[in-house]
Amino acid sequence: MTLFPEPLARLIAALNRLPGIGPRSAERLALFLVQADPSISSDLSRTLTEARERIRACEICGALTETQPCMFCSRPDRSGETLCLVERSTDILSIEKAGGFRGRYHVLGGKISPVNGVGPEDLRIAELEARLDAEGVREVIIALGTDVEGDATSYYLAKRLGASGVAVSRIAHGLPAGTGLDHADELTLQQALEGRRPMSSS
Amino acid sequence: MTLFPEPLARLIAALNRLPGIGPRSAERLALFLVQADPSISSDLSRTLTEARERIRACEICGALTETQPCMFCSRPDRSGETLCLVERSTDILSIEKAGGFRGRYHVLGGKISPVNGVGPEDLRIAELEARLDAEGVREVIIALGTDVEGDATSYYLAKRLGASGVAVSRIAHGLPAGTGLDHADELTLQQALEGRRPMSSS
Repeated sequence: MTLFPEPLARLIAALNRLPGIGPRSAERLALFLVQADPSISSDLSRTLTEARERIRACEICGALTETQPCMFCSRPDRSGETLCLVERSTDILSIEKAGGFRGRYHVLGGKISPVNGVGPEDLRIAELEARLDAEGVREVIIALGTDVEGDATSYYLAKRLGASGVAVSRIAHGLPAGTGLDHADELTLQQALEGRRPMSSS
Repeated sequence: MTLFPEPLARLIAALNRLPGIGPRSAERLALFLVQADPSISSDLSRTLTEARERIRACEICGALTETQPCMFCSRPDRSGETLCLVERSTDILSIEKAGGFRGRYHVLGGKISPVNGVGPEDLRIAELEARLDAEGVREVIIALGTDVEGDATSYYLAKRLGASGVAVSRIAHGLPAGTGLDHADELTLQQALEGRRPMSSS
């Protein structure tokens, strides 16, 4: 005898496959969903199907989008002169939330990682190079993470893209906003010192 | 300009309505769902619809069930002589997981709470009384919570059901398993003392 009726057990199993949803949360959510107002579960089911059917990767930059090309690639007020290179399409959201960047994006799709068998040919580097000429790109800003793989990939790209004459930069390493020195680890402090910038005395 | 494409924003909103899923979790789940293997989102959508359509409250006891009556009310190896009274249908799962109870259940649907405008007539008490004779019930075990409303409801029911000649008991209050006295609050210790049981010396 199973404790849950079969349809409920299947719903719990499906919820349990989501990231951050353990067996207990899955059970709690499933019990809520079958007992709450029917509009809650029908809304969820419908929006899920719609999002899955209508959200695609932009054919140019790889951002999540409903239209082709995406709003970043198609808006005239976003300059094609500056491309911000990110690992995943969701990284674009982080940068957009921060605000201030008015160029376009390019999703690399991963980081070079010999341990995991990911080489440069597995990433969207050829697509990036094709855009450099086509869109008149003048600067590529590398916005990858600051782990070992992010560093290796950044150095590789700086060398490869630099050969084509485009300016390549990487977002700054340093102390996060609003924190004291006592909360920073040694490597962060070391990189913050190396990355020091002159202050005007006026 | 919204940050998320419209279908994605709607999915995030639907996920955010679930208990324990805040705005950040909803965003993370939605982004996972539109990018993961399509089987994950289609399974979730399908199992959700199925569970919602097929799971109902048992017409007799109120348990969540796919069949009418539920497995608790219909299995011949579960005695109708003992009814366990719980507040919500999900409480049945807690007792079944604990194991050991072989009688049937009755879901009250709430607790008496004058503050929230819940009186005895709002609960499934008449349905319970109808079962006493029909199923030959000899004992009703009250398994409500130990808060003020649980206490008040229990006393009310003990009086009302006692008049019909059925034995009424309430699950024990006391020290939880595997804990020391130092972790128990005063009320729990007081109730554990009051509820002491003789130990055989043999």
